[in-house]
Amino acid sequence: MAASTVFADCCWVARPFRGLHLRRTLLLSSRFNNRMFLSSSVFAPVAMTTDTSSKLLDGKSVAKKIRDEIAIEIDKIKETTGIVPGLAVILVGSRKDSQTYVRNKKKACEDVGIASYEANLPEDCSEEEVIEHISQFNTNPSVHGILVQLPLPRHMHEEKILNAVIIEKDVDGFHPLNIGRLAMQGRDPLFVPCTPKGCIELLRRYEIEIKGKRAVVIGRSNIVGMPAALLLQRANATVTMVHSYTKNPEEITKQADIVISAAGVANLVRGSWLKPGAVVIDVGINPVDDPESARGYRLVGDVCFDEASEVVSAITPVPGGVGPMTIAMLLSNTLSSAKRLHKLK
Amino acid sequence: MAASTVFADCCWVARPFRGLHLRRTLLLSSRFNNRMFLSSSVFAPVAMTTDTSSKLLDGKSVAKKIRDEIAIEIDKIKETTGIVPGLAVILVGSRKDSQTYVRNKKKACEDVGIASYEANLPEDCSEEEVIEHISQFNTNPSVHGILVQLPLPRHMHEEKILNAVIIEKDVDGFHPLNIGRLAMQGRDPLFVPCTPKGCIELLRRYEIEIKGKRAVVIGRSNIVGMPAALLLQRANATVTMVHSYTKNPEEITKQADIVISAAGVANLVRGSWLKPGAVVIDVGINPVDDPESARGYRLVGDVCFDEASEVVSAITPVPGGVGPMTIAMLLSNTLSSAKRLHKLK
Repeated sequence: MAASTVFADCCWVARPFRGLHLRRTLLLSSRFNNRMFLSSSVFAPVAMTTDTSSKLLDGKSVAKKIRDEIAIEIDKIKETTGIVPGLAVILVGSRKDSQTYVRNKKKACEDVGIASYEANLPEDCSEEEVIEHISQFNTNPSVHGILVQLPLPRHMHEEKILNAVIIEKDVDGFHPLNIGRLAMQGRDPLFVPCTPKGCIELLRRYEIEIKGKRAVVIGRSNIVGMPAALLLQRANATVTMVHSYTKNPEEITKQADIVISAAGVANLVRGSWLKPGAVVIDVGINPVDDPESARGYRLVGDVCFDEASEVVSAITPVPGGVGPMTIAMLLSNTLSSAKRLHKLK
Repeated sequence: MAASTVFADCCWVARPFRGLHLRRTLLLSSRFNNRMFLSSSVFAPVAMTTDTSSKLLDGKSVAKKIRDEIAIEIDKIKETTGIVPGLAVILVGSRKDSQTYVRNKKKACEDVGIASYEANLPEDCSEEEVIEHISQFNTNPSVHGILVQLPLPRHMHEEKILNAVIIEKDVDGFHPLNIGRLAMQGRDPLFVPCTPKGCIELLRRYEIEIKGKRAVVIGRSNIVGMPAALLLQRANATVTMVHSYTKNPEEITKQADIVISAAGVANLVRGSWLKPGAVVIDVGINPVDDPESARGYRLVGDVCFDEASEVVSAITPVPGGVGPMTIAMLLSNTLSSAKRLHKLK
């Protein structure tokens, strides 16, 4: 992307962020809040100051805490009912990045006591074969969530394949029926897409109020930006979506108390885009060239972190912010699904 | 509503609006644009000036033109295939206003050649009876659209009954699957809810550009505000939703090039809320006391019309703005449904 090139060298200076230490009084709690979110109120609120200390929204720690809560709940369920929540992942082809993601998800499942099921299909298999595997998982009572690892090979029709997952096991929450329910007042989706759910859960865990706040979501993808905007809206924020046709993204973003950026453009959001004291959730994971790194690149967010950290009251790091929350929410969705399918409380 | 009382007497002075005459060069066109909207480009663009003449967005005339286009298309279909589009309306109880709405819809159907089907059920009938009638219409091949007149009697579960309408005949477009598709990029709903569709169609007919514009939607109901915001978003506007938890609605609304107000609060939006040259679509139809009227009340919009007309470049009147467009879109949805179900072009 052109903007990556333009912005990549603007501010990412390799110096340690001054506010790496934050409150980590992570109490255990496994109750569910509002049927959609894990319970909050366990964190002390982040102080809204321009002091750069204690302002990191540490997704890694919060996700760890959530996984611990999930593990405790699953232990109890196993003990009292014998039921083991199960997640099935379908991987088509042999992309290295997809294999890594699937391995990470499997590991995360194991850690909390969720049983993993896998279907590894060759790159040149047919759509029918993939759908046949999905159908088997649909009817398998030990499987409570089904996840098709994207991207699929080019010869496959993504929508057709994703639609084969029954809505009761659509732990990704991408089914249009789920999205429709998310958009509508008085309706509840069965699942909320994991990444936006992770963003909002992070805000809740830090007791950052959403109601009545101005929020800007940058990017409007089906899997992050759009559902994130719907979630903020449900939480009674006043939401504006900024996208490629927005004429003055800086001016609009600067009005926001809460910014969720999911544009996929390295260092797009400069310090000058942000209101002093704003809270920033950076969903972007963008590779930029880095000859000093063994891999030849490093990962940065959409937000120019160093500039932003001088202005905002709280911000997620990349990596270690939204990423770990996404996997935690996948586990949370799988647990919810098992409870719903087995009619557990 | 309290706000009605506060604002009702602010500006609605009974004097004729200076700009009642607008361009009415309504050429006939029956092609469909973008699968969702009737074709536009038949109106000369509304000049963006502060002159109050020629600034009325005359929904009544535009709706008349659309109905004429629909009638011509239905005539052709009847002639070439013998197919007659059919709309079924289910009315439960004997509310006077609902009866009037149903009568108007029936009349509008007759005028364009759509066959009307009706089920009038008593107030005290059971949910099962209503659903039984819906099921009959679902399977009746002469019926292409089914509409349940709201509100239903209090003892009925609205969602349960609306969900009984098969999505292929849900001409109201309220099904969450339709709303989900509306929210998602790369997906298309079968039907777009009539009132928001009418708002956007009115903008298109007047060649008011949406792409890249700042838009504010006031109110976030499932049937108007929320889908209107999704439609503006699909048309590449930068959209903000203003609602009861928004702290500074005036300031936010004043940034908008396009305002769609569906708050249901008489004269909520003052002239001071509007950017000079903005375009205003007023969905509100609010009764306010008027001892001089034979009925004892008159209908006003959400927008303080006289104040607004001094500021904006274009505005819908109430009545005669969005109302007639809504019925025209219902006819349009019914025709689309008949074409889709019979696989006509």
